Amino acid sequence: MVIPSLIQHKRDGHPLKPEEWARLVADYTAGRVPDYQMSALLMAVFFRGLTPEELAALTDAMIASGDRLDFDGFQLPLVDKHSTGGVGDKVSLLLAPMVASCGVAVPMMSGRGLGHTGGTLDKLEAIPGFRTNLSLRETQSQVERIGCAMIGQTPEIAPADKRLYALRDVTGTVESIPLISASIMSKKLAEGLDGLVLDVKTGSGAFMPEPERAIELARTMIGLGEARGCPTVALITAMDRPLGRACGHTLEVEEAIEGLSGTGPEDLMEVTYALGVEMLLLAGVARDRAEALGRLQDSVASGRALDTFARVIEAQGGNPEIVRDPAGLPQAGAVEVYRAPRTGSVAAVHPRRIGLAILELGGGRRTIEDEIDPAVGFVITVKPGDRVREGEPIASIFARDGQGIALGTRALSEAVVIGDAGQLTPLITHRITGQGVEMLAGAGAD
Amino acid sequence: MVIPSLIQHKRDGHPLKPEEWARLVADYTAGRVPDYQMSALLMAVFFRGLTPEELAALTDAMIASGDRLDFDGFQLPLVDKHSTGGVGDKVSLLLAPMVASCGVAVPMMSGRGLGHTGGTLDKLEAIPGFRTNLSLRETQSQVERIGCAMIGQTPEIAPADKRLYALRDVTGTVESIPLISASIMSKKLAEGLDGLVLDVKTGSGAFMPEPERAIELARTMIGLGEARGCPTVALITAMDRPLGRACGHTLEVEEAIEGLSGTGPEDLMEVTYALGVEMLLLAGVARDRAEALGRLQDSVASGRALDTFARVIEAQGGNPEIVRDPAGLPQAGAVEVYRAPRTGSVAAVHPRRIGLAILELGGGRRTIEDEIDPAVGFVITVKPGDRVREGEPIASIFARDGQGIALGTRALSEAVVIGDAGQLTPLITHRITGQGVEMLAGAGAD
Repeated sequence: MVIPSLIQHKRDGHPLKPEEWARLVADYTAGRVPDYQMSALLMAVFFRGLTPEELAALTDAMIASGDRLDFDGFQLPLVDKHSTGGVGDKVSLLLAPMVASCGVAVPMMSGRGLGHTGGTLDKLEAIPGFRTNLSLRETQSQVERIGCAMIGQTPEIAPADKRLYALRDVTGTVESIPLISASIMSKKLAEGLDGLVLDVKTGSGAFMPEPERAIELARTMIGLGEARGCPTVALITAMDRPLGRACGHTLEVEEAIEGLSGTGPEDLMEVTYALGVEMLLLAGVARDRAEALGRLQDSVASGRALDTFARVIEAQGGNPEIVRDPAGLPQAGAVEVYRAPRTGSVAAVHPRRIGLAILELGGGRRTIEDEIDPAVGFVITVKPGDRVREGEPIASIFARDGQGIALGTRALSEAVVIGDAGQLTPLITHRITGQGVEMLAGAGAD
Repeated sequence: MVIPSLIQHKRDGHPLKPEEWARLVADYTAGRVPDYQMSALLMAVFFRGLTPEELAALTDAMIASGDRLDFDGFQLPLVDKHSTGGVGDKVSLLLAPMVASCGVAVPMMSGRGLGHTGGTLDKLEAIPGFRTNLSLRETQSQVERIGCAMIGQTPEIAPADKRLYALRDVTGTVESIPLISASIMSKKLAEGLDGLVLDVKTGSGAFMPEPERAIELARTMIGLGEARGCPTVALITAMDRPLGRACGHTLEVEEAIEGLSGTGPEDLMEVTYALGVEMLLLAGVARDRAEALGRLQDSVASGRALDTFARVIEAQGGNPEIVRDPAGLPQAGAVEVYRAPRTGSVAAVHPRRIGLAILELGGGRRTIEDEIDPAVGFVITVKPGDRVREGEPIASIFARDGQGIALGTRALSEAVVIGDAGQLTPLITHRITGQGVEMLAGAGAD
């Protein structure tokens, strides 16, 4: 295998053979193909794309680079969810315990914050003592015991993805639909799932802002899942404004607890229930959408979902009491109310600006070594389309000190745009399965 | 300077700033930018190209990475030639001594064989004792003394090019017109020339087979030269058949000596004189083309050109006697005549097949450590369009042994195609200067 010839071949628009991809990934993971050749090849893939055969071979090779979760002999159906990431997206924190308490096993593997978006792992680690780095064995045992674990990518799962992702991150080759799809799906498929639900974000705060690209990404991932015996469903959801009200780690854990207690904000619950319905249907534990929704709502009303979250926290080393008394979470040193600077209609709440402000407040990482301050962030109580009066409180800023409050105030003044007329775009626009794309009510109004 | 952002920027079709290119090349040469980022960037450049400003900045940065030849206070005009490479192209061996003996200084810096093409350095090293690795100081002193030196790229000249070229070679990023232009011109411009002539090959045996691409490459290099005070002229010449009759190192040195003695093959002399005329005009030592051609012809007829070649050989450690008695060059162990297998017209003499056969015979390198056998090769006495009779001798094979003869015979049977009608394409099709492209007589017949 002459690597420069393979790179040239791909560069010139010709597909590589499945066995060439298999060998490339295996040799790269083993250190026999240097980074400088792989990064040139990835850039060629960025420009040329991958055929379905190439993508399948790449994904399989990435799965084969590591171990798989092994639930052989386990009774419960195994289902997971993946989100492409956004601002205020704490859905995983609610969804995993809700679905698990409906008799579905959820081995939820999540990531860290990336760019302007927050990561589920970072949010969970706002809970004092919470460990996200479980081993494969610990994860399996916890899922069998509680029905749910919330973990980071273990070193055993798809190590090729870990190396490739780190390389893409520093070589400008992240934003490629086939490479993103292979990365996500190699990890998820290594979990040995019975079904997978994808929350693919669209809008200015998403990594793929254009709906067409989001749909293409969803279809690509669904194709990979279905071909490997993992029924996969995607919802395209709006990320042109933050999801829910809370943005920031402590604040989002608090809002997740509110949601599990039946008092969560409407948009957050709508997305969570919609994804949960798909998970229960894929798991085969509900006959139809109405039954699935009923079971999920009951898991909240009965307190079982919140209780499952508490058991997960306890099992992973955190203090389960925080679900009753969130004051046990790290609290901000300075809090201030933000008021509408004028009367009018909210035209926009820019999620990217909010996410970057959290970074600036110390709530994210600029380098891999940065410590996160989980307490900082925003609670924004208005959505596009809401009417506001000058001087009305529309948000709260949580910071370390007065300097942070000033920074947060400036960020809100830029992120929350008040004009004469605003409109809320539909929250869930498409449902995509192996059968095709279903446009949901209201999607056309966008 | 955040490298991944620069790579993304270029990848997305936006030019980088001149100071960003300067910094990138300086940091890469100093080892502060890793190969894996540079190779991804080079692949993005392959797809996106470079604006004239970017190309200028890249070239300048590559020149600035090393030293320049310093001929301050030197009386003679300084002119060089570059060829993009082909099969049987021994023009440099004739041209440097001819032009030098006309009162022009020629610090000829050449390369090694690449792929199917032979390299001037490898040909010179067929001469026992000949050293091509002169230092900058030795080169300057020899040019001042004899008017000519024939050397390889010194470590002091454009070290950034050396590193970048090695990286491109293993990452599938060689065939990019701006990257090729920057590589060639950074070395040539570091010589501090008063003029430069480019021999840009076209046809199946050239690196840029399509005439349009060859012309684009020529224009790109001319733009770089002119903007840096180095008047540059290019000729587009045919490489759809070998140049001259001899292909192989010893054989080409012998043919160069024939040419310098007035008995060289017509096509080789035509290209050599055409390039020489441009060099004399750029040097300002002839008033017009007729005078320039007359001086070059006189340098051969008088024996001065051959004498200069002998002095160069002697100065660089070789045995100057070989110009009178080429039997001092390494000789092949087995020689055999190749006869026309049928009566007809020569339809093609494929240079790439001939070049690869020389490699197979041991006359080129497959890895950087390979030792070259200079004695092997071919002398092919027919050109496309020639009528041949079955059984007529049309070539000679020079090999180590009978096995090599068999290999060479097979190569010739594939390379020399005899059909019912063949035609010789024009040898020199275009003359290109900063003013534009001039189509030469016969170019339209191609």
